[in-house]
Amino acid sequence: MTERPSEADIIRTITRLAGGRRRGVRVGIGDDCAVLELAAGARLVATTDLLVEDVHFRRRYASPSDIGWKAFAVNLSDIAAMGATPRWALVALACPEDGRAGEVEAFYEGALALASAHDVAIVGGDTSASSAGWMVNVTLLGEATAAPILRSGARPGDVLAVTGLLGRAAAGLAILQAPAPPHGLGAGTLAEVTGAHLRPRPRVVEGQWLGHADGVTAMMDLSDGLATDLPRLAAASGAGARVEVGRVPVHEATRACAHALGVDALAWATGGGEDYELLLACAPDSVERLAKGLAALTGARLTAIGEVTSTPGVRYMDGRGHEVDVAPGFEHFAGRGGRARA
Amino acid sequence: MTERPSEADIIRTITRLAGGRRRGVRVGIGDDCAVLELAAGARLVATTDLLVEDVHFRRRYASPSDIGWKAFAVNLSDIAAMGATPRWALVALACPEDGRAGEVEAFYEGALALASAHDVAIVGGDTSASSAGWMVNVTLLGEATAAPILRSGARPGDVLAVTGLLGRAAAGLAILQAPAPPHGLGAGTLAEVTGAHLRPRPRVVEGQWLGHADGVTAMMDLSDGLATDLPRLAAASGAGARVEVGRVPVHEATRACAHALGVDALAWATGGGEDYELLLACAPDSVERLAKGLAALTGARLTAIGEVTSTPGVRYMDGRGHEVDVAPGFEHFAGRGGRARA
Repeated sequence: MTERPSEADIIRTITRLAGGRRRGVRVGIGDDCAVLELAAGARLVATTDLLVEDVHFRRRYASPSDIGWKAFAVNLSDIAAMGATPRWALVALACPEDGRAGEVEAFYEGALALASAHDVAIVGGDTSASSAGWMVNVTLLGEATAAPILRSGARPGDVLAVTGLLGRAAAGLAILQAPAPPHGLGAGTLAEVTGAHLRPRPRVVEGQWLGHADGVTAMMDLSDGLATDLPRLAAASGAGARVEVGRVPVHEATRACAHALGVDALAWATGGGEDYELLLACAPDSVERLAKGLAALTGARLTAIGEVTSTPGVRYMDGRGHEVDVAPGFEHFAGRGGRARA
Repeated sequence: MTERPSEADIIRTITRLAGGRRRGVRVGIGDDCAVLELAAGARLVATTDLLVEDVHFRRRYASPSDIGWKAFAVNLSDIAAMGATPRWALVALACPEDGRAGEVEAFYEGALALASAHDVAIVGGDTSASSAGWMVNVTLLGEATAAPILRSGARPGDVLAVTGLLGRAAAGLAILQAPAPPHGLGAGTLAEVTGAHLRPRPRVVEGQWLGHADGVTAMMDLSDGLATDLPRLAAASGAGARVEVGRVPVHEATRACAHALGVDALAWATGGGEDYELLLACAPDSVERLAKGLAALTGARLTAIGEVTSTPGVRYMDGRGHEVDVAPGFEHFAGRGGRARA
């Protein structure tokens, strides 16, 4: 057990781990403020997210490095959802004085592994003791050279689509929270879902590409789950939505975990949160082109799951055209992730 | 006892309290990111500060409104120290679920009282439950139209000067932490020092003016105390400093509290933190002009306390030309604030 590192130690750690990345950074860590230069004509985008121990993560299964990674992932996902480019981060970290040696460094290693992959520089921050657990706040700043894609641009008749696969992070949380891994699940399946929960991969490259592509009318990231986030997009657009639940893309590993735990995989996919996939509305004639473009760009899949309606409210339909209920969304540590009723 | 307000409640509160201030705000609260427009040619300045219950404040004497005020004050002070103009804030708040009704609203009232006074808009944020106490993180973004004043520009021979009076916040903390107010101190004296601790008034207007004035070579804010902060400015400038301790400006109320508690007022003025005054280096022939300018601008005093030296290190001299030791700086809740030895 050693003392929490000093601010000077932390600055040295960040400098060592981050290397020389300083695009647009006139003054980085070490003065009263960072001084930054946007590209000519660019708009600034800014987002902040807070992760609190025993609310957003548990130290029992989330390592300091995982926490650092995720604190960046959730913010990168917000920048991606605007179709913007992430640039600079400010990191505030509170943790107990009696942390083990290397924990704070491991936190920054996890943070910088993801930040550096997206060419994001840490330009400021604050550190503090904490009388309780860990608390992390990351503010991420980015640039938008095209007009940012808002939640409010969806029009009736637009197709609703999601990147990737939904429900993996909720499955991962259920596995991590279980007293022991359920029988019959392979290591690959467990790693797939727990990795999705602990180290989500935000759709940064995909978001930037979609932000410049024709046909995208609205976009947001799925942080709280489709059943919570889609009503936000619909309401912001003054519209409603209809989702075909059979089209919601679910990973095989998610289905296997749901089967093993006796829960409904669709409940995780609609009510579970933290997938950090992108939800978008687009012109019907653009879906195929967008899906092909994303596939060529990163291999990410884009799945049409429904459409924007002029009638307010969000309805979920089964394959027989009957309306089904889905849970209203994700609650941390609620233990169920959500539920779906026929 | 009621539940912590929802995110929608908080957005409504902020919108109601903040009124229509939206300069440069293309998209505010409610989408994945805020979208902001800087003035043409301006650089972005960014700072973040974290306040943690029982590390930076105690709920016994700091009301939610005080906490909100101070979370903005400490960040505004950093922007002021660059000579820049504060514009936009992102606010992250974690507090227990069982908070009393109105506490979160009171927090935002305190925050917006100071933010609005400086025309700063809250454009984003995050809220969370906390398993422990209150934690607040504010990220403040501003614009610099002139070149920002850094810590690193001081030159040997420059005069060192401070705005306002030092040691009041440390006196206030000592009074707030005392089991009972010491005998013989008037209500005005107590209010002067406790107000300085709970609701510091950052030198925003003064900082902007100094940032555009001729002769200022380096500037920073005094958040951790002169004895900690001056060595930072000197080191960043590759220089040293000599301070005449007899010239360090101390408020009468601070002296009265020090006398009543049997401590050294100078120890608070040099070793105490959280005064949020500005420390600057300037050309010797500019001091008088700068002092007159500040006096005319806001009535703030500017006091020359020493000079920048080519020899590294910071030395403190008494009136007889003898070197004296001062405490290395402020530690929260260390109970002494600092100490000075002859």
